[in-house]
Amino acid sequence: MADSKIFLSESEMPQAWYNIQPDLPAPLMPPLNPATGEPLVPEDLLPLFPMSLIEQEMGMERWVDIPDEVLRIYKLWRPSPLHRAFALEEELGTPARIYYKNESVSPAGSHKPNTAVAQAYYNKQDGVTRIATETGAGQWGSALALACSLFDIECQVYMVRISYDQKPYRRLMMETWGAQCLPSPSNQTEAGRRILARDPDSPGSLGLAISEAVEDAASREDTKYSLGSVLNHVLMHQTITGLEIKKQLAIAGDKLDVLCGCVGGGSNFAGFCFPFVKDKLDGQDIRFVGAEPRACPKLTRAQYRYDFGDNAQLTPLLKMHTLGHSFIPPPIHAGGLRYHGDAPLLSLLVDQKLVEARAYYQNEVFEAAVTFARTEGHLPAPETAHAIKCGIDEALRCKETGKEECIVIGYSGHGHFDLASYDAYLRGQLEDVDLPQETIDEAMKDVPDITWPR
Amino acid sequence: MADSKIFLSESEMPQAWYNIQPDLPAPLMPPLNPATGEPLVPEDLLPLFPMSLIEQEMGMERWVDIPDEVLRIYKLWRPSPLHRAFALEEELGTPARIYYKNESVSPAGSHKPNTAVAQAYYNKQDGVTRIATETGAGQWGSALALACSLFDIECQVYMVRISYDQKPYRRLMMETWGAQCLPSPSNQTEAGRRILARDPDSPGSLGLAISEAVEDAASREDTKYSLGSVLNHVLMHQTITGLEIKKQLAIAGDKLDVLCGCVGGGSNFAGFCFPFVKDKLDGQDIRFVGAEPRACPKLTRAQYRYDFGDNAQLTPLLKMHTLGHSFIPPPIHAGGLRYHGDAPLLSLLVDQKLVEARAYYQNEVFEAAVTFARTEGHLPAPETAHAIKCGIDEALRCKETGKEECIVIGYSGHGHFDLASYDAYLRGQLEDVDLPQETIDEAMKDVPDITWPR
Repeated sequence: MADSKIFLSESEMPQAWYNIQPDLPAPLMPPLNPATGEPLVPEDLLPLFPMSLIEQEMGMERWVDIPDEVLRIYKLWRPSPLHRAFALEEELGTPARIYYKNESVSPAGSHKPNTAVAQAYYNKQDGVTRIATETGAGQWGSALALACSLFDIECQVYMVRISYDQKPYRRLMMETWGAQCLPSPSNQTEAGRRILARDPDSPGSLGLAISEAVEDAASREDTKYSLGSVLNHVLMHQTITGLEIKKQLAIAGDKLDVLCGCVGGGSNFAGFCFPFVKDKLDGQDIRFVGAEPRACPKLTRAQYRYDFGDNAQLTPLLKMHTLGHSFIPPPIHAGGLRYHGDAPLLSLLVDQKLVEARAYYQNEVFEAAVTFARTEGHLPAPETAHAIKCGIDEALRCKETGKEECIVIGYSGHGHFDLASYDAYLRGQLEDVDLPQETIDEAMKDVPDITWPR
Repeated sequence: MADSKIFLSESEMPQAWYNIQPDLPAPLMPPLNPATGEPLVPEDLLPLFPMSLIEQEMGMERWVDIPDEVLRIYKLWRPSPLHRAFALEEELGTPARIYYKNESVSPAGSHKPNTAVAQAYYNKQDGVTRIATETGAGQWGSALALACSLFDIECQVYMVRISYDQKPYRRLMMETWGAQCLPSPSNQTEAGRRILARDPDSPGSLGLAISEAVEDAASREDTKYSLGSVLNHVLMHQTITGLEIKKQLAIAGDKLDVLCGCVGGGSNFAGFCFPFVKDKLDGQDIRFVGAEPRACPKLTRAQYRYDFGDNAQLTPLLKMHTLGHSFIPPPIHAGGLRYHGDAPLLSLLVDQKLVEARAYYQNEVFEAAVTFARTEGHLPAPETAHAIKCGIDEALRCKETGKEECIVIGYSGHGHFDLASYDAYLRGQLEDVDLPQETIDEAMKDVPDITWPR
């Protein structure tokens, strides 16, 4: 019988990240400076990022060596296992072979540290002693707190107030790793004070937390800003996961047919699938399926055009699938999938029909999560459960057609801090929301009318 | 450079548990029937356990084959990694080589499923369709819920009421795996109803929860009882961890000098060290150090004599280190180390001076945990942090003496559900308790005066 888990030795761990930019099937539209309407130049980003990361953001080298120090830290948990989900296959009665790549084994419990560690390293090299960032429910904030702790960098996290109050565990994790975590709006920034003056009890929002972190970084000599998804260099750091899958499938003597991942800002999904895109372009029959919530259907129902990355219109304009930067999705439990836009690199692949997308209701997603937990044992995060639902659907399709396909699920994180949402599901308290077209149309009115090249 | 993690392939996973009973350096005193004062016979245990487990409890076979079905489930997460703690070594500046065996990778987050899965299997083989157990903070209950889910057995958990109310996450985990979890005292049992009649708001206790689970199992034809520590067969199932360590150290080309583990009921520590005991008896220079809280010092300050396993005096009498079955330790955060007694097999080794013991205050334990989290990344459970404190102390001793020893820490579980205790530590709110001798003397007055053989 084949192994239930395929491990790589540390010497087999990939030594370079894969940059998809030179291999794109169509030109990537540049980010635009909102003030000038012209493409960004590297210097525009210097108040926020060290030059090394800006170079990665715009770089055209196919392979970027992973620094030794980053490899050393990756090895605290990497290479991560690729599991063969025998029990799930049996439960479904499918002829498909189902694998899942387990990124939940990182200390922060998700794929996020893959880029957090890299970003902390390059900041440290650049002499940066303090990094500011925002976090919603806390996945990204805790990953950056971990990374900063390992590089002895001060970490300032602006955490959306309502999560800060309602979900203390992620905050406590950040503090255990030595980060300073403030509820946003805070009185540390102009942006925060302005809101507090109007509404001292404001619950905050991710858009506002971004504004606070950006202002913090831009106004202090010792501080840079860090983002956990969307940007090109973030997606590149995540390719370590897909590169490992490639080696692990080779060890298993298998070949990818379908890859299922969940899509928030896109870095998790991109990490899994980018290393296989060239194979598909070269003619291999591979499908990539991105799973998103019906409550935030940026890949299945949104337009592909220039928009801001944040509600406050502070970021550069990015060409991406967007529901509009003022769009506020219904409060579903998969907080990490509630972003209004999607990474420009991933959006381009969706636009080019290289990546498929599918949207799910909450209840069917949790049903899949519980099926998984009761067969494979592990408890997935609600975000990850979207990928699992997608993988189960693909396996059931194989059952119908009798096809013995190889399905890989991106298991992006565990659900240890999301058990309240399981509770809501088991008690029948989860709502399935269908987003009216008018809601989307309304938010799209705020999107600036820009075409590039002009 | 040596690897940061030593993996075993699944084909290298041990195929048999190690039963230490034939290799003991002194005779193990039998459990006594409290009614007759005579040694238990297998039939005494039949209302509670299937005969296969009773045979393991009393067995003298050195090796017991692990059933294929149990191996198959172990492989959902086993073999678990042995990490080399390079970053911690560097932080301490020690010449010692520090390893830690990572049992936190199981779906329930600790070593507990190693025996839960085995027990569920043997019950299933015996036609049992329902298992009852008790749980304090929920580690054991969630492990058994997982195991029962995988074998399609009904699982009834009596959870101490105060934990049920204050720590909902472990309960939600159990329910996600399909277990029924009731706050104890409950109105399901005579024992529970008796307490509720006197005090409807009773916070419950582990002793009472045991009584409820035992009564439930004994009074229903379809139901057996399951215990998560203390008993011989439970300790035997845990030896999978030490057997793996043995192979992993051989792969690393290293040889054990000191093994540090935390001690609650003793199954975690026994699992790590029993496979090395024969080597020590054969003359190898190995030290085993059990770490316990000063608030519950059963190995460092208690007597070795016959006592009940539970407050309610329902269990057989066991010869063990005991603080008295009516002893109630101060409310420290390492809930899993608050048991008044210790496994008879481990107690015997302590009595024979084969195992050392050391007691720690809470604050020094959490200080060690934070040092670990900020170097190795992973966040240990408060129980596990006792083992880490012990390992750090041993490494600092090596630093003083210049000895390049090989230290292995038993990393029994993660602290994802214990972050509130980290918070209390970081805010300086943890109390260090020294137990007055009178408190121990007082509890010991309730211990029956029994010597065996008479």
